[in-house]
Amino acid sequence: MKIGIYGYGNLGRGVEYCASQNPDVEIAGVFTRRSPESVNTVLGAKVYSAADAVKFKDDIDVMIICGGSATDLPELTPMLARDFSVVDSFDTHPKIPEHFAAVDSAAKSGNTLALISAGWDPGMFSLNRLYAESILPCGNTYTFWGKGVSQGHSDAVRRIEGVLDARQYTIPKDSALDAVRSGKNPELTTRDKHLRECFVVAKPGADLQKIEDQIKNMPDYFADYDTVVHFITAEEMKEKHSELPHGGFVIRSGNTGANGAHNHRIEYSLSLDSNPEFTAGVLIAAARAVYKMKNRGQTGCITLFDVAPADLSDKTAEYLRKNLL
Amino acid sequence: MKIGIYGYGNLGRGVEYCASQNPDVEIAGVFTRRSPESVNTVLGAKVYSAADAVKFKDDIDVMIICGGSATDLPELTPMLARDFSVVDSFDTHPKIPEHFAAVDSAAKSGNTLALISAGWDPGMFSLNRLYAESILPCGNTYTFWGKGVSQGHSDAVRRIEGVLDARQYTIPKDSALDAVRSGKNPELTTRDKHLRECFVVAKPGADLQKIEDQIKNMPDYFADYDTVVHFITAEEMKEKHSELPHGGFVIRSGNTGANGAHNHRIEYSLSLDSNPEFTAGVLIAAARAVYKMKNRGQTGCITLFDVAPADLSDKTAEYLRKNLL
Repeated sequence: MKIGIYGYGNLGRGVEYCASQNPDVEIAGVFTRRSPESVNTVLGAKVYSAADAVKFKDDIDVMIICGGSATDLPELTPMLARDFSVVDSFDTHPKIPEHFAAVDSAAKSGNTLALISAGWDPGMFSLNRLYAESILPCGNTYTFWGKGVSQGHSDAVRRIEGVLDARQYTIPKDSALDAVRSGKNPELTTRDKHLRECFVVAKPGADLQKIEDQIKNMPDYFADYDTVVHFITAEEMKEKHSELPHGGFVIRSGNTGANGAHNHRIEYSLSLDSNPEFTAGVLIAAARAVYKMKNRGQTGCITLFDVAPADLSDKTAEYLRKNLL
Repeated sequence: MKIGIYGYGNLGRGVEYCASQNPDVEIAGVFTRRSPESVNTVLGAKVYSAADAVKFKDDIDVMIICGGSATDLPELTPMLARDFSVVDSFDTHPKIPEHFAAVDSAAKSGNTLALISAGWDPGMFSLNRLYAESILPCGNTYTFWGKGVSQGHSDAVRRIEGVLDARQYTIPKDSALDAVRSGKNPELTTRDKHLRECFVVAKPGADLQKIEDQIKNMPDYFADYDTVVHFITAEEMKEKHSELPHGGFVIRSGNTGANGAHNHRIEYSLSLDSNPEFTAGVLIAAARAVYKMKNRGQTGCITLFDVAPADLSDKTAEYLRKNLL
């Protein structure tokens, strides 16, 4: 399977690393909107101008689009789906139906297959919500994120006057996790579920109390949460907060039997040293499924909900039944 | 969707309870090899003789076969797959390829669709092994069972002379779970991973030391494990050990990035008050997928590896994308 990598930031680098762990995957090229000469790939993949991507139409089985969900993917995925089978990690939950419709239309007109929203949430967490609710129809599902770096929240803090750099960690509260695991099906508010912890490098002489107040009262991002703010040096930021870890939990608690007497708990959790590298692993497996399903004649837009798990693997059906079932 | 329930023990009762939680599922009948008049169903499903099942061929979309893997299912599933689309929970791991081949041949000759080995292991645990290995190709997968009742081990203890009743719990060792979660990719022996705890009601005057020795030295079942034996009264057995809880963990630890510097952990766990009722939930969801896939023309034998997750749900694709993705 020959893949293209469209966009070369943290996620694109992750895809290049991950491809090297999958013997059936070959990289046809990295496509960048920057000057190709200015881009050095981590394992030596060739770099081309994004404007030339369409010339590689016949050399690429699946194009993996490594862009941001806010502005890149809503434009790039429909555009590229006209020429390539594609995979993206679109993660703006409320806009998924709209993105799906745009990509479906483009892929059908281009006779290609597109898989959107492959990652961990949406992605692996979504799959676990779906499996769990299908098996235990009477119950509640809880999703917790963290401990990990939220790039959107970090960016929001960086935009405050007097802030030089910032990192925001989303942290699930143990009290909420314990209540869910007890099988009591608690009703939890936003504040009950997660804590937000910020590490901030301030400009010399900045009003720290004012920065802290602005963070804690920021609507949508922080106002509905308990937030802790730490001011640190630029050196400490570099030393202790330069990675992008993340993770979280999907827990379903449900009841069965006479008068629902029996409780069951399904728990799926991720603990990731590198959010983009793990997401890259999901993108490569999804690209493999797209490659197989396109070869069977499928076109249009799909998600991981539509993919038989065996299609994500490079192993044969016989191998999987014998060794993993 | 109209289902039949073939066999009416703990699992069959679980399927009847679970069907009542799924508005799209109707029970056409329970089929028993006992005298139908002697069987009282928990929620009033009608009972017929197993010998008459084939008369219901046109009234049943999927027959859920609720039998044991040792002797029932190897015979029943191929037999019934000639007349019905079927689902079973065959769980003898080493014999899955053989069972698959027999059922595939029967289903193809009968133009039906059969899904085997739906449950939690094989079943949900298998799916999690497959997803995790597809996403993190470089790493190790660990499966732990328990804490829960192993019926096979309980039966083995009951066969010892002087034993009136017995219950065996399989318990994962915390030390092994911690070592796996640390990301150290440990090599673990059978003894490292699980502890076996037995509760035994002995005949009055029986030689307790001899019973304990026989348990602890029983090849295959106990000799390779640390085993703890408790002698209790029949009353205590009834009061504290009459349920069938189970559960366990599938953990994959893998590495990505430059020199594998980043570690990731995927952990799936189940904590089940009732092993048969949870298995019934998987069987019903699998039956729904069989119903949909058969209507699309598929025949032969499949497993959960071949099922797109959306087919397990009674919700529309639009609903799932909007609410669960």
